Amino acid sequence: MVQMKTTQLLTKTRKEVPSDETSKNAQLLIRAGYIYKEMAGVYTMLPLGLIVLNKIEQIIREEMNEIGGQEMLLTTLQQSNSWEASGRWDDKVMDVWFRTQLKSGAQLGLAPTHEEPLTEIMKNHITSYKDLPKYVYQFQTKFRNELRSKSGLMRGREFLMKDLYSFSKDKAEHDKFYETCASAYSKIFARIGIGDITYRTFASGGSFSKYSDEFQTISPVGEDSIHVHQGQKLAVNDEVYTDEVMEDLKLDKKDLKEQKAVEVGNIFTLGTKYSEALGLKFVDEDGSEQLVFMGSYGIGPSRLMGLLAEHFADESGLVWPESVAPYQVYLVAVGQSEAVVSASNKLYEELTQKGLEVLYDDREDVRPGEKFADADLLGIPTRVVVSEKTLAEASVELKKRTSKELNIVKITEVVDLLYKSVN
Amino acid sequence: MVQMKTTQLLTKTRKEVPSDETSKNAQLLIRAGYIYKEMAGVYTMLPLGLIVLNKIEQIIREEMNEIGGQEMLLTTLQQSNSWEASGRWDDKVMDVWFRTQLKSGAQLGLAPTHEEPLTEIMKNHITSYKDLPKYVYQFQTKFRNELRSKSGLMRGREFLMKDLYSFSKDKAEHDKFYETCASAYSKIFARIGIGDITYRTFASGGSFSKYSDEFQTISPVGEDSIHVHQGQKLAVNDEVYTDEVMEDLKLDKKDLKEQKAVEVGNIFTLGTKYSEALGLKFVDEDGSEQLVFMGSYGIGPSRLMGLLAEHFADESGLVWPESVAPYQVYLVAVGQSEAVVSASNKLYEELTQKGLEVLYDDREDVRPGEKFADADLLGIPTRVVVSEKTLAEASVELKKRTSKELNIVKITEVVDLLYKSVN
Repeated sequence: MVQMKTTQLLTKTRKEVPSDETSKNAQLLIRAGYIYKEMAGVYTMLPLGLIVLNKIEQIIREEMNEIGGQEMLLTTLQQSNSWEASGRWDDKVMDVWFRTQLKSGAQLGLAPTHEEPLTEIMKNHITSYKDLPKYVYQFQTKFRNELRSKSGLMRGREFLMKDLYSFSKDKAEHDKFYETCASAYSKIFARIGIGDITYRTFASGGSFSKYSDEFQTISPVGEDSIHVHQGQKLAVNDEVYTDEVMEDLKLDKKDLKEQKAVEVGNIFTLGTKYSEALGLKFVDEDGSEQLVFMGSYGIGPSRLMGLLAEHFADESGLVWPESVAPYQVYLVAVGQSEAVVSASNKLYEELTQKGLEVLYDDREDVRPGEKFADADLLGIPTRVVVSEKTLAEASVELKKRTSKELNIVKITEVVDLLYKSVN
Repeated sequence: MVQMKTTQLLTKTRKEVPSDETSKNAQLLIRAGYIYKEMAGVYTMLPLGLIVLNKIEQIIREEMNEIGGQEMLLTTLQQSNSWEASGRWDDKVMDVWFRTQLKSGAQLGLAPTHEEPLTEIMKNHITSYKDLPKYVYQFQTKFRNELRSKSGLMRGREFLMKDLYSFSKDKAEHDKFYETCASAYSKIFARIGIGDITYRTFASGGSFSKYSDEFQTISPVGEDSIHVHQGQKLAVNDEVYTDEVMEDLKLDKKDLKEQKAVEVGNIFTLGTKYSEALGLKFVDEDGSEQLVFMGSYGIGPSRLMGLLAEHFADESGLVWPESVAPYQVYLVAVGQSEAVVSASNKLYEELTQKGLEVLYDDREDVRPGEKFADADLLGIPTRVVVSEKTLAEASVELKKRTSKELNIVKITEVVDLLYKSVN
């Protein structure tokens, strides 16, 4: 819901976090009441966390629809057949399977990714060149049985993934969409507030293309190492940072700078690997039978949420980019005088009527300092304070989470001002 | 996306269904391209299916928010501790667990329901009477290892569930919300189009209340047997249809009629069962420590989707209620003359601009009869046909999926007419 009072909010902020939680993003998100740790790499989204996750998801959805993606939802439970055909049922090939079984004893797996089942499904819907190209995506919980999971939301055992798959007639048609999707990814990261620190990065490819592309966000908390070419706004993953590759890319090592980074997206040319293994074919214009040419395109919304939490945080707590903050405004009533309470209530009503996303700290038994600390910990972009002092000037006090500056604004003007700043 | 052309739609309709699919709802939904069968009780939502499921979900979400529910998202993977405390980790007590394990060997379960983990979480956020009441809900995929699963979407092994949980100070506060939620459920079923055939039904209770309440929808495809009192718009589940209960409810068996029904929702007084097992307490106004009084409230959106598919279907295919249909309008171009194609394209543009949900059958190599058959199979509420014949009268032909009547409407008036009928 876009308006909420602190006294009604399900969660409270906390001073302490689980002693076994070592990652900064999860520590902050737990303290602020966004998530709850079920076990390492497995987190419940509490109401505030779910709002942030949904906002990230919606930005991605809009951009995927814009490039012709059709949303669907595959299943977690997987039978072995299509995975055996591709060779990935084997734990030696894919070592992150969670296994389970039906009462009949039939072995099942929890999907760590979805190339195989989707290729199987598409056999019902792709038979002719007229059926191509097609772009399909989903937001689905993935399960990966990681040996260790110590990075909070940034490496989950159960986590949300947006995975898009492209089905094209040939490499030329594929390559065109690949670049379209790369542009959409850049738009997504810009909208989420990390456009300026996110680089399209050359990484290792497969049988069907020399390289794959990762989107890496510069951050001291990153597990990856990349070499950034600032001028060309691109990077090279350390794993392919060889003299040979540099020559191939016509880059000079002295122009690149090594930095820590978090992989926030990747796009990959699958080629005919899965269409061949599973028999996904189409009849071409000339009557010949051809294999469908595929690509995969991933973004992890929950990992992004962890990155945003950890990267932008300061010593006082979370700092959300405006586009994904659970609320735009944190409204604080200072003191319990009738004038303050009635002015605050009225302002809350007006902000609500304008459709602004407001969290109203209406607690009576809490000191102003504690309210300010919560406003900071929660990372809401704009704090609005109503007090005896501000009311004496018929005003309120505005403070951005990212600034120390306090601004006094007439109470009659504040609603319009806030409305304009977010619309 | 609210507009789509058949030539771009991911899926095609099919003549045949998997030979092992015995349920009518899944057979129809598979043929029409709404779902794909991964295994018995486990279905992928294809784009059309996901739209329907999302519409059902959104109706439920709006009504849950309206009564103060806060949405969150718990995890699928579950450790044993809280379930051992309640006694439900044991397969003899809860026989539908899917089990899996971490690489460390630690046993995990896939959540079949979420009372235990949520009670555990709420210990961080409920300490005082001031924190109560609280209402929490989620839309989460549930996993239940059913021995058999032959009813398509109506009894899944992996399926979507809306589960709300209430946390109250005492039974009086609980009872009030229980009735509020019952009213919200009635609204939901009315909005989804089954209000007139859905009955609040007395069913067996637990330690904390004599009865629980089910919402049962009369349907020949139902697995349950209920006794309906038409005058009082209520019913009694066959499992509690005893003389003793009838006396208690002040009902006379001769006023009730036995009917087959599908359980589409249930509300249940949990009392202090879980708060006692897991230690969820609060300090009351008088300083005494009390157990939180709980309730649970479930609706299965995917089961509802299966019920709607099966219940309203006729010999030609699906018949969706308007509120959940994937598109409102099925626009058919009959013939390939330039006049027809250009008038159809123009109409599609105009409907799109008005924000109407339109599926435009723009296929060139398909006979009109096949297009009409697909319009029926897909169950879209209104079919609009543009042909040489209708254009001769500057008109289009309108037909409701639920009627045989054909109406000729001026092409200049049809957009407004359709817009008004859905807004």
